[in-house]
Amino acid sequence: MPYIPLEEHLPGITGLLEYRRDTAAPIRELTQVLLRGPSSLTEGERELIATIVSHRNQCRFCTNAHTAAADILLGEDNTSAKVKQDIAIAPVSDKMKALLTIAAQVQESGKSVTADSIQKAKDAGATDIEIHDTVLIAALFCLYNRYVDGLSTVTPADPAFYTSLGERLKNHGYNRLPQGYDHLKKNKPQEK
Amino acid sequence: MPYIPLEEHLPGITGLLEYRRDTAAPIRELTQVLLRGPSSLTEGERELIATIVSHRNQCRFCTNAHTAAADILLGEDNTSAKVKQDIAIAPVSDKMKALLTIAAQVQESGKSVTADSIQKAKDAGATDIEIHDTVLIAALFCLYNRYVDGLSTVTPADPAFYTSLGERLKNHGYNRLPQGYDHLKKNKPQEK
Repeated sequence: MPYIPLEEHLPGITGLLEYRRDTAAPIRELTQVLLRGPSSLTEGERELIATIVSHRNQCRFCTNAHTAAADILLGEDNTSAKVKQDIAIAPVSDKMKALLTIAAQVQESGKSVTADSIQKAKDAGATDIEIHDTVLIAALFCLYNRYVDGLSTVTPADPAFYTSLGERLKNHGYNRLPQGYDHLKKNKPQEK
Repeated sequence: MPYIPLEEHLPGITGLLEYRRDTAAPIRELTQVLLRGPSSLTEGERELIATIVSHRNQCRFCTNAHTAAADILLGEDNTSAKVKQDIAIAPVSDKMKALLTIAAQVQESGKSVTADSIQKAKDAGATDIEIHDTVLIAALFCLYNRYVDGLSTVTPADPAFYTSLGERLKNHGYNRLPQGYDHLKKNKPQEK
């Protein structure tokens, strides 16, 4: 039961983004630029950063949503599972391991990011902008996770909800869909 | 020494907002709407929320900057000092005490916000939108604090820097100043 009145058919972040659209617009734009804009990191890699941070913040809605998006973008569900279990054993490049480690440090605190972890990322070929974006994506999901859980939004239990949401995030990104569009598209999340 | 190359004369968040302007634009817009847009919370009260979160995240740059902004907006420096010391003894309304308590819980984790603390805020007269905005401002500063410290930006030691920055935040808010403007205005932050 959310702490403020949100539309019942819009769980998690979706109801919050409709509650105050003037704050939602820049949140959507920031997310779209960071997770879907031009980048040397793939969309799947960037969704893994969102996933590890949401997982460590124990935000179930965001973890489920971004795990689904990452799985769809990567075409398999092993990588996201391993990343959440232990970054060291995940089937990703050394550069991604270093960036995911930085993201996990950001989740804890900005002060937890060490010069050593930055150096490891650079040694593995990470560029300055990749390091910048990793820190900002991780920080952004610290915002999202707190927004979603701090207002006690609803977390659907049905895995199919997140698969549909993940498809939507893959196909349409983070922009707001035009009014009415949601009812027409076949991937409309099915809520209970 | 920042982890990525930032303009040396732009410490803390200021260099990051110039490093990637396409991500900076929505961050600035979100902050402007939340901290300077129409609200039943005063600008000073909203800066106190930014201050308590930054303080508890131990982000010195943000704490100093938003303490300065709050002090200038409130016309005194006792309230921000007390808020940082102990919300219970701060000379603010019961409603603000309840909202600052919620902000402090959000700093810890979204999951730390309790139904009890929300009820206390409502009993003290807080509206749904005030509760929403408190959570989102607190979450936004969890982003800022991690962004600023996660990339190891420079924290000026001179208190005069933050006074100038606080004046700027009071007079111009969070929008980007037009190019060249900074050199003309008398409140240009003096860095060392």
